[in-house]
Amino acid sequence: MTVTTPAGFTAAGVPAGLKASGGKDVALVVNQGPAFDSATVFTSNRCKANPVLWSQEVVKDGVVRAVFLNSGGANCYTGPDGFQTTHAVAERVASHLGIGAIDVVVCSTGLIGLTNPREQVLAGVDTAYAALSADGGGDAAEAIMTTDSVSKQVVVEGAGWSVGGIAKGAGMLAPQLATMLVVLTTDAVVPATQLDTALRAATRVSFDRLDSDGCMSTNDTVTVMASGASGITPTPEDFTAALTQACTDLAMQLLQDAEGADHEIAITVLNAASEDDAVEVGRSVARSNLFKAAVFGNDPNWGRVLASIGTTQAAFDPADLDVAMNGVWVCRTSTPAADPATVDLTGREVAVTIDLKAGSERATVWTNDLTHAYVHENSAYSS
Amino acid sequence: MTVTTPAGFTAAGVPAGLKASGGKDVALVVNQGPAFDSATVFTSNRCKANPVLWSQEVVKDGVVRAVFLNSGGANCYTGPDGFQTTHAVAERVASHLGIGAIDVVVCSTGLIGLTNPREQVLAGVDTAYAALSADGGGDAAEAIMTTDSVSKQVVVEGAGWSVGGIAKGAGMLAPQLATMLVVLTTDAVVPATQLDTALRAATRVSFDRLDSDGCMSTNDTVTVMASGASGITPTPEDFTAALTQACTDLAMQLLQDAEGADHEIAITVLNAASEDDAVEVGRSVARSNLFKAAVFGNDPNWGRVLASIGTTQAAFDPADLDVAMNGVWVCRTSTPAADPATVDLTGREVAVTIDLKAGSERATVWTNDLTHAYVHENSAYSS
Repeated sequence: MTVTTPAGFTAAGVPAGLKASGGKDVALVVNQGPAFDSATVFTSNRCKANPVLWSQEVVKDGVVRAVFLNSGGANCYTGPDGFQTTHAVAERVASHLGIGAIDVVVCSTGLIGLTNPREQVLAGVDTAYAALSADGGGDAAEAIMTTDSVSKQVVVEGAGWSVGGIAKGAGMLAPQLATMLVVLTTDAVVPATQLDTALRAATRVSFDRLDSDGCMSTNDTVTVMASGASGITPTPEDFTAALTQACTDLAMQLLQDAEGADHEIAITVLNAASEDDAVEVGRSVARSNLFKAAVFGNDPNWGRVLASIGTTQAAFDPADLDVAMNGVWVCRTSTPAADPATVDLTGREVAVTIDLKAGSERATVWTNDLTHAYVHENSAYSS
Repeated sequence: MTVTTPAGFTAAGVPAGLKASGGKDVALVVNQGPAFDSATVFTSNRCKANPVLWSQEVVKDGVVRAVFLNSGGANCYTGPDGFQTTHAVAERVASHLGIGAIDVVVCSTGLIGLTNPREQVLAGVDTAYAALSADGGGDAAEAIMTTDSVSKQVVVEGAGWSVGGIAKGAGMLAPQLATMLVVLTTDAVVPATQLDTALRAATRVSFDRLDSDGCMSTNDTVTVMASGASGITPTPEDFTAALTQACTDLAMQLLQDAEGADHEIAITVLNAASEDDAVEVGRSVARSNLFKAAVFGNDPNWGRVLASIGTTQAAFDPADLDVAMNGVWVCRTSTPAADPATVDLTGREVAVTIDLKAGSERATVWTNDLTHAYVHENSAYSS
């Protein structure tokens, strides 16, 4: 039930000494074909890490044959020397597999501003290559963990084909991707252009709507590879649906493992004039430290929700907003309604519903509460 | 050294029973003339409180003769009934002073979603009116405090005239004003149109560049009244400079009293292509929970600064950014430079300097660190 479940893929996850703990820290996922279609989306942060700068070139022709990933160091803001390390890693992977380095995506995660020791990473490539197997997905998922407390894996079954995936990410889960590395695989026959369309549709409503702490990472990469090994060509609709389900499942796993969080908060915006409006409103609430701290305190503070909505440009009447928390409409027409004392926020899952009364579109944005543990983890996590 | 220091003003601050503590909670500042010029800026939040909706109408003709303020309840999201309370308060003030209600600005602060008991506030108007005096500024400053730990007052002396002010605010200190009420006075002769220009210039580089927690309030109001009682007409440049100095002084007092903060952080952006770019970059760093938590942990995490810069649309080369923390250039050309271990962040004041190398404009944005005390205060502060 992982990235190697679809036919045509091997993977490995092994220790290379990058993590101080001595745990698994490099991973390799290889597409054995017969097809090598791919699509990838990257962080929209303009300050991108070296592996992203490299991989942006790799993915341009729609062919990716392998993804190499390491934890223990993000290789970000490390200059030309760091870029050369990424390049050397891709060359080493390619030489083992008898392919071109330009078909090897490289992903890194961990502390930024630190150069990964090149020889150590290259030795890790050798070890990972030697360990490749058709059931290595679980090891790969484990090797890419940083502050993650559990590994994230998924499989969605189609009719004779499947989509598999692994992900890491436990902080900086923010718009247009998080500190998040995701490798997805499928044995369906899907041309690269269609893969790209499907991946953008899937990430738009899953990873892109996760906003754990408003911080956007420098290394985020989501790659999907299609081996065609099943010989089956699903309809674009069926494939997109399966890929979206896989991405949403992984996104919820990331949300549930967000650094220091006590609550998962789903903010659903109803009756917006446009889907963009709904997302903007949802994101504004997801970014309110005051609101997120209130949820941590089990306080159904709908006033902070309205104050956040008011910062957006979405279409709505400020005097006619409704807000529910866990199904209780505590605010109607921008005034107090049901008694907030009847809202129970003690469970992990919190649902905020906002009725903009301005149209018929909707969207859900997910975030976490702001907790003492978040502050602790991110003040103690060394530069 | 307060709002009643300039000639021509009286003030009072008295208890009206709105605060559970029984402390002073209503304030009145009255311009005795001979001139009644004024200017006001409000929150840019679209969900505005009732006192803001009222006062927006009051200030349109450039004449304000009195400002009434209460703590203990924000009168926000309280519907038409709440608006009628605000209106009744203005009428009561006007009737005491023998003026029109349309010349009375009303400000409220405290919890949102709660209606202020109308009779109680009106009785407070009577008590405050009876207590008006030429040295009542300190009482007024005290009466508008909510989670503020100290009152905020200022005087800036001109040549034969002065600017005085009081302010409250200790959270939601965010762009385009914070949860912040400010009353400024001057005995200089300054026509309303010039007051407006000066006030917008002053707030643009002071209150508007304070971004404590990214949250924008619903009640923010900054009013300046000019009595002309000194008979002196300063040059527009001199007056704007004094008003800017008064606003900046009050803004720094607000920053130093921000809820739960351990550090005041000044983010200065140098060599930007435009002042807007500099502000956008400064604000992006001021909004990074990860960076702010790192400062709380005394961790000079410049990688989180670069990651924030990368989220903006400002002009810069992502591979050529310099960052200093407390004067130590820990990052040059987007790569590690001086050893971060040499940066001492144990003091309250932290200076972050960013060189964009894209022009010659600059700006400073101020924020606080993200602390356990912030989370505690804002999770325990009841809705």
